[in-house]
Amino acid sequence: MRRMKLMIPGPVELSPEVLLAMARPMMGHRTPDFEAILEECWSGLKEIFQTKNDMLLITGSGTAGMDAAIASTIKEGDEYVCITGGKFGERFVEMVKAYGGVPREVKVEWGRAVDPAEVDKALSQSKAKAVTLTHNETSTGVLHDAEAVGKVAKKHGALFIMDAITSIGGDYVKADEWGVDICIAGSQKCLVSPPGLAMVSVSPKAWEVIGKNKTRNYYLNLASYKKSMEKKTTPFTPSVTLIYGLQAALRAIKEEGLENRIKRHRLMARATREAVKAMGLELYADEGHASNTVTSIKIPQGLTDEDVRGKMKKEHGILLAGGQDQIKGKIFRIGHMGNVEYLDLMSVLSALELTLKKAGRDIELGSGLGAAQRVFLQG
Amino acid sequence: MRRMKLMIPGPVELSPEVLLAMARPMMGHRTPDFEAILEECWSGLKEIFQTKNDMLLITGSGTAGMDAAIASTIKEGDEYVCITGGKFGERFVEMVKAYGGVPREVKVEWGRAVDPAEVDKALSQSKAKAVTLTHNETSTGVLHDAEAVGKVAKKHGALFIMDAITSIGGDYVKADEWGVDICIAGSQKCLVSPPGLAMVSVSPKAWEVIGKNKTRNYYLNLASYKKSMEKKTTPFTPSVTLIYGLQAALRAIKEEGLENRIKRHRLMARATREAVKAMGLELYADEGHASNTVTSIKIPQGLTDEDVRGKMKKEHGILLAGGQDQIKGKIFRIGHMGNVEYLDLMSVLSALELTLKKAGRDIELGSGLGAAQRVFLQG
Repeated sequence: MRRMKLMIPGPVELSPEVLLAMARPMMGHRTPDFEAILEECWSGLKEIFQTKNDMLLITGSGTAGMDAAIASTIKEGDEYVCITGGKFGERFVEMVKAYGGVPREVKVEWGRAVDPAEVDKALSQSKAKAVTLTHNETSTGVLHDAEAVGKVAKKHGALFIMDAITSIGGDYVKADEWGVDICIAGSQKCLVSPPGLAMVSVSPKAWEVIGKNKTRNYYLNLASYKKSMEKKTTPFTPSVTLIYGLQAALRAIKEEGLENRIKRHRLMARATREAVKAMGLELYADEGHASNTVTSIKIPQGLTDEDVRGKMKKEHGILLAGGQDQIKGKIFRIGHMGNVEYLDLMSVLSALELTLKKAGRDIELGSGLGAAQRVFLQG
Repeated sequence: MRRMKLMIPGPVELSPEVLLAMARPMMGHRTPDFEAILEECWSGLKEIFQTKNDMLLITGSGTAGMDAAIASTIKEGDEYVCITGGKFGERFVEMVKAYGGVPREVKVEWGRAVDPAEVDKALSQSKAKAVTLTHNETSTGVLHDAEAVGKVAKKHGALFIMDAITSIGGDYVKADEWGVDICIAGSQKCLVSPPGLAMVSVSPKAWEVIGKNKTRNYYLNLASYKKSMEKKTTPFTPSVTLIYGLQAALRAIKEEGLENRIKRHRLMARATREAVKAMGLELYADEGHASNTVTSIKIPQGLTDEDVRGKMKKEHGILLAGGQDQIKGKIFRIGHMGNVEYLDLMSVLSALELTLKKAGRDIELGSGLGAAQRVFLQG
């Protein structure tokens, strides 16, 4: 099995410290020693979420966290304003439907960011209990203005439920300042931990709604997690191993410093955008709202997904992400989240430049790399 | 942090092979290489479940697997015959209620096994869609007769949903022969993997019910897992790391051989029972239906949980399990599942004998150990 360089938007490559932390012997999960690990994780996560709200840890994919947010707040017939414009935004719509709710979709053109005035309009025209937003829409590479959406939600007294799975730890997420009532993260993205953990912060306002709700879910009932959290534990056996990994990952984030880390992600994103533009490629996402953790790029006319991603994989051992759903085969995506730094990015951009050249694109070798270097030079 | 010897009914201690497998670099989860790992796991699990049914892998605790079984089959008002007699049997009742179903409880006295005639009666008196059984009730140390329950369920055309979380891999589970429609396992018990994965096998009859059902759940909708499984993948990002661990664990099970493994578990269980009886202790579970993976023992009169479990932990670094709910402080439990073998068991029994002696029990040192040795001598 050939080892691949992962430049996908998660799971990301893990550091040796995180990998080896998971090789530690198993421990009992109902012990003071494990409680101390849980508390360290909760507190580290609160700093990254920039929240004083309760922090819950669910053993499951990021989607489990999104599901828990919907399942715990919804009842049949409830209206939810769901901002879509990508695969993950649409996932909230599917969830609202699954629980018998009524999604009021604010459809955003794929690759564009939401206009908060549209959310305001949708809220005025409905009795929505909540607004859902995918902060960083991984499928399109768009970063939405969460602060503006939070203001509109607050104005209408609606809960603000935000999927920050691919932004948290790599870009600013100010859960309290932005009024995010339920904020969801996943372990395998910018938090640089193994997949399998979802983190959910819950505001007092959301607890009020949840408290009055009869949750049609057992495993993903946030109220159970709160009850256990207050006793420094989890309602069901947590993945001790993954939590070992998360603990080590959070320590590394603390060591780098959140501000430095976000600055690094933004630098990588800018370097990527400038490089691919200099290579004659076109960005897919509106550049004014481009994600700082994943960059989406149009596959140039005359080339196929296989010509770009296929060759990058076969000839250079680099795994890039493709387009999903309606943009499958039309774009490719470079994930630059987690521990990606200068050395990683330059080698990947260099391979991309070579791949395009070999595929017959009219490209001056070094032009993309030079553009990236200029970004790094400015810092 | 003092390293503890885990003699609890999960999570169990992992082998170095499993621990180190999890330190392997992350890989993309939508790649042929990862598909091959998934397929190896599914096929290994089918052998252990003794089933030809579909095998699904959910990132979540064992409870997530139970929840998926209920959520995917139930609709409001559906009756489910739930066999209880312990904490985990009761969990199914709570789930049925959470989804708006009507549990028809067959209450078994804690520590006793279910009488299949009672299940027959409950099915005759209801229109139950399904019967739920906790094969090996961890909270009481009872192993129920799943084959007999399966026959009764079949007679009434009800689905047979079985939680085999703490039996599978340590005792016989013949999913197909016993007519188990949905069989649930967890990773951190006799499968000797880290916690965080649930495995669920689903029969054609169960798929028929699920196909007609509008599942009020998104993350735990078995139909999504089937759809993805047919494309050799999972619907949401799986915990790649935990699946590395599971793969290594399943290889070790194959190497030992399922029959040998079950024989070993039964031997450990018998040795434990004979030893504690010889120490003058009383078994909690009906010995005719005692679990082969966990033994429940009454705390003798005059002693407290602290006198037994507390001292075992402090003086010998051994973690035993306590009683739960109505039998909290009244029993303690020795988990002898997973990789537990002669050396582990003898040292733990020796520590227990010493602990009881020091606590003032009238006990001849070596008597319990001798009883265990006699079991090992017979084989």
